[in-house]
Amino acid sequence: MLLSEQERIDELGRKDYRIIQRKDRFCFGIDAVLLSWFAEVKDGDNCIDLCSGNGIVPLLLDARREESVKAHFTGLEIQEEMVELAKRSVELNRAGENIDMRQGDLKEATAAFGRGKFQVVTCNPPYRKRGSGIVNPADAKAIARHEILCTLSDVVREAAGLLCGGGRFYMVHRPERIAEIFSELEANRLTPYRLRFVHPYADKDATMVLVAAIKGAKKELHTESPVIVYEADQTYTPMIGEIYGDGRH
Amino acid sequence: MLLSEQERIDELGRKDYRIIQRKDRFCFGIDAVLLSWFAEVKDGDNCIDLCSGNGIVPLLLDARREESVKAHFTGLEIQEEMVELAKRSVELNRAGENIDMRQGDLKEATAAFGRGKFQVVTCNPPYRKRGSGIVNPADAKAIARHEILCTLSDVVREAAGLLCGGGRFYMVHRPERIAEIFSELEANRLTPYRLRFVHPYADKDATMVLVAAIKGAKKELHTESPVIVYEADQTYTPMIGEIYGDGRH
Repeated sequence: MLLSEQERIDELGRKDYRIIQRKDRFCFGIDAVLLSWFAEVKDGDNCIDLCSGNGIVPLLLDARREESVKAHFTGLEIQEEMVELAKRSVELNRAGENIDMRQGDLKEATAAFGRGKFQVVTCNPPYRKRGSGIVNPADAKAIARHEILCTLSDVVREAAGLLCGGGRFYMVHRPERIAEIFSELEANRLTPYRLRFVHPYADKDATMVLVAAIKGAKKELHTESPVIVYEADQTYTPMIGEIYGDGRH
Repeated sequence: MLLSEQERIDELGRKDYRIIQRKDRFCFGIDAVLLSWFAEVKDGDNCIDLCSGNGIVPLLLDARREESVKAHFTGLEIQEEMVELAKRSVELNRAGENIDMRQGDLKEATAAFGRGKFQVVTCNPPYRKRGSGIVNPADAKAIARHEILCTLSDVVREAAGLLCGGGRFYMVHRPERIAEIFSELEANRLTPYRLRFVHPYADKDATMVLVAAIKGAKKELHTESPVIVYEADQTYTPMIGEIYGDGRH
């Protein structure tokens, strides 16, 4: 596998899966790892990941999958060069049968893939509202972080369109926007049924929230036990070690 | 102080405050203790507690108050016999100058007390929807637990009416209803700005949520560090010991 000068290969800690990342582009973070741990993939599921970037979420979902669970993963990403990078990672892991990376605009995802075609939608979208902070709209990192090419509203609307009845939507986002997330979910007939807050330390405010919602069904909302990333001494908690799967604590 | 056969006196763990409770009625629980710890009372605040029951929240807020902070607490409760009990607890603690217990229907609270007259509204309302579980509507315990005489919607509407601009609303509720809480707050121009989930154990789902909202102002929402009640060995965590103020761990 040929790498360009800006590229490196990172281990994913599961099934020897690896990913190609560009040092000068958005590299995957703990949010993608937590999202793929939080999402439930069942046998026969057809899954799509929106804002897929370098394909980290489909790669991790496929790497975490038990051998007895057959599932297919599509990754949708708007930036051509990220799609190209992701396709090479899929090839590197010989995962082409399970993972299909596609270039396209999520705002037209339902039109492109068809209504109700997926059991699972995942998304690690840009967290920040357009206009919060100084942003260069041509910058690939800015596109991954700010709502330049899509908004929370676009993501939730398309997730609802892509999901079949009873299908599940899994998203990681910022806890500051939880009220807005609930209101978008409700407007799109998605019922939130699992919440999980992520705190850097046990005594600090949450910096991420994991949300699961189900399409067109009633279900009681459970706020699951919090994820704490670091111990007071700045080492990873045992839980994070388990989630990463490489015992990194 | 004369007690009837059904009554007992409990310590509140702060300033030697005590409360009279009836063994056959709703006695205060950890939710009231957490709510009065979570709520912020500042010098000069005029505060009202809705669904005040035996007056536990005004009593605890007054007991927790630093001597340098002057504040007034009104407790509004619909059940006459609970108001009578609360008044005797106020007297027992010689707190009549700071606490005023009133009998009345919270659904008419804004009309009775006037619009925008309070800096702080607290409420530990009935958590369960009417019709969930078998309920005797004449039962005082049922009134405290089920939405028989008031709903979440009534509570939030009246809180918004009673608060001045910039005033704060503090409520404890069930996490299952958080989406509904956000939607009621938004409908009443109350902005949620603090959330705190309470988990019985570090690895269990939350059983309570503390919510703070501000009237007519923009403020970013913070999900604060979780409250964990018990250690794995079923003793109280140090945090709960501190909150109770009597070192009960």
